Amino acid sequence: MRIKFEEMHKVMKEKLLKYGVGEEIADGCARNLAENSQSGVYSHGLNRFTRVIAMLQNGTIKPDNRPTCIGAMGAFEQWDGGLGMGNTNAKFCMDRAIELAKQNGIGCVALRHTNHWQRGGAFGVQAAKAGFVGICWTNTMPNMPAWGAKDRRIGNNPLVFCIPYKDEYVMIDGAMAQFSYGAIESARAAGKELPVAGGFDENGNITTDAAAIEKTWRVLPIGFWKGSGFSMLMDMLASSLSGGMTVTDVGKQGNTPTDEYNLSQIFIAISVPDKEENDAAISRIIEDVKSSAPANENVPITYPSEREKSTYRDNVSNGIPVDEKVWKAVLEL
Amino acid sequence: MRIKFEEMHKVMKEKLLKYGVGEEIADGCARNLAENSQSGVYSHGLNRFTRVIAMLQNGTIKPDNRPTCIGAMGAFEQWDGGLGMGNTNAKFCMDRAIELAKQNGIGCVALRHTNHWQRGGAFGVQAAKAGFVGICWTNTMPNMPAWGAKDRRIGNNPLVFCIPYKDEYVMIDGAMAQFSYGAIESARAAGKELPVAGGFDENGNITTDAAAIEKTWRVLPIGFWKGSGFSMLMDMLASSLSGGMTVTDVGKQGNTPTDEYNLSQIFIAISVPDKEENDAAISRIIEDVKSSAPANENVPITYPSEREKSTYRDNVSNGIPVDEKVWKAVLEL
Repeated sequence: MRIKFEEMHKVMKEKLLKYGVGEEIADGCARNLAENSQSGVYSHGLNRFTRVIAMLQNGTIKPDNRPTCIGAMGAFEQWDGGLGMGNTNAKFCMDRAIELAKQNGIGCVALRHTNHWQRGGAFGVQAAKAGFVGICWTNTMPNMPAWGAKDRRIGNNPLVFCIPYKDEYVMIDGAMAQFSYGAIESARAAGKELPVAGGFDENGNITTDAAAIEKTWRVLPIGFWKGSGFSMLMDMLASSLSGGMTVTDVGKQGNTPTDEYNLSQIFIAISVPDKEENDAAISRIIEDVKSSAPANENVPITYPSEREKSTYRDNVSNGIPVDEKVWKAVLEL
Repeated sequence: MRIKFEEMHKVMKEKLLKYGVGEEIADGCARNLAENSQSGVYSHGLNRFTRVIAMLQNGTIKPDNRPTCIGAMGAFEQWDGGLGMGNTNAKFCMDRAIELAKQNGIGCVALRHTNHWQRGGAFGVQAAKAGFVGICWTNTMPNMPAWGAKDRRIGNNPLVFCIPYKDEYVMIDGAMAQFSYGAIESARAAGKELPVAGGFDENGNITTDAAAIEKTWRVLPIGFWKGSGFSMLMDMLASSLSGGMTVTDVGKQGNTPTDEYNLSQIFIAISVPDKEENDAAISRIIEDVKSSAPANENVPITYPSEREKSTYRDNVSNGIPVDEKVWKAVLEL
């Protein structure tokens, strides 16, 4: 079934109000989740909503806390998220980074004591739609072994780069794990092999077998030791600059997969000096890459975020594809 | 054989003076290369020196051009490298980013028309030694196929994150290709398999066989499609923010492997709000990661840049290991 954006937004907003969230945050949270679904990132839209409500109920998301400024050094500010709603906290902080960039050419906000931002890419796109380069990342609960380790002590810590391009943007939102837990579970459920190696089996061999990886949960960082290293540095920067929790600290709060909370995030916005030159440079890159010799004649070479734009247009026209069970569960909240 | 830092620096500086480089840039360039070798990054130290001289001779490095400021927006500045020496241009721009961060909490310099910075990690460490977080990246010549493509049209675009830690630092300097050309050539020459998949063979299969990868030069991005996407975004940001060349443009200058020139780079420095909290957070991360269950009892789990510190101390005490043929070639320049 397909649900229009306005309907999806309205239903989620009403449920948030019912569970004690104030008008403004309820509206913003529901809008972000519906936009994520509309962009085709279903895993971080409506499908996450019951988890948000569960965290409001167990107290790990404070329904109406807002970020407060705890330190300002010109173009770099520290904010405390008060354990409030993660996606509206993140939107607020990217808006603040954009304001700082308007005044200083670049702006940075380090945010502590916040919650899951859902889809990081949304905040990159937010910067680009305002005319700025957006860079942001978050730490997470421990969900990946460091390179050479068997147990999960580092985060998959998604990293986002986004740049305005014509009336749109080019964006990448990539976690430091090769596959999300959801992607591994889906492949196993469908009886499919992963398209590339995604983790280790019980014998310590790298494998594309999703069921074997589920037995160890020893998932692969992107680039093996490289993604493991980037993950650690991104955690160090996010926790140090914000004065907030490290991945290690997040793990020691006794998280379960449904209550990852109290995270640290970085938001950077940078002015685009010349929009015309910017669009020309990006066009040269895109045109050159897309005219590469394809490995498979039937698989077009795309640039990051290219495909989500057609999904978005389709979902605006025809409604957002929704799993009926998920929709029913949301309506019954 | 092993050569002391002072001797290595002196010899390279004298050769640079001989080839028309002025005193200050000759000193800085030789110092950077000798420090890279002393840190154990031999591939981007003395071993690159004959290539630097060749580029001075063929005019792709202008011997005494210095960066000039072409735009200032508060904490974000654009500089033009005048096609001068890449490593001294980069050091200058990270110093400038640090100055901007002292005034504004964060500083960013976008540098165009510059040359190869040799070891990007050196500029992250430079920021950390001054007490600041350092983030920087560069674009390169086209040296990697985009995901799904067979021919090389994107760059490996190394990305550096560095943070002060006690009297030292933690740093990652990682290219978006899984292996450098040098690493693939060394493995083939030694008849060794790569430790993990590094590229495609002629049949389009992912392989650890270095000789097979050398036949296609279809090297793997880290994280497959992810590293391909990060590479494109880093190129877009570096070229747009600096007003400089894209990877595509660099490729169209008619480069050969010995004259990669006219690159675009980004340097960001950020103030560390609380050094004591910073060190405590990093210690918690390092201690937790190092106490992971190891996959191999004989292989310790390390944090990024951990091992280079003992190499550095060894090389300070005992001299820098040098390939006799390389040293002889440098002396004969």
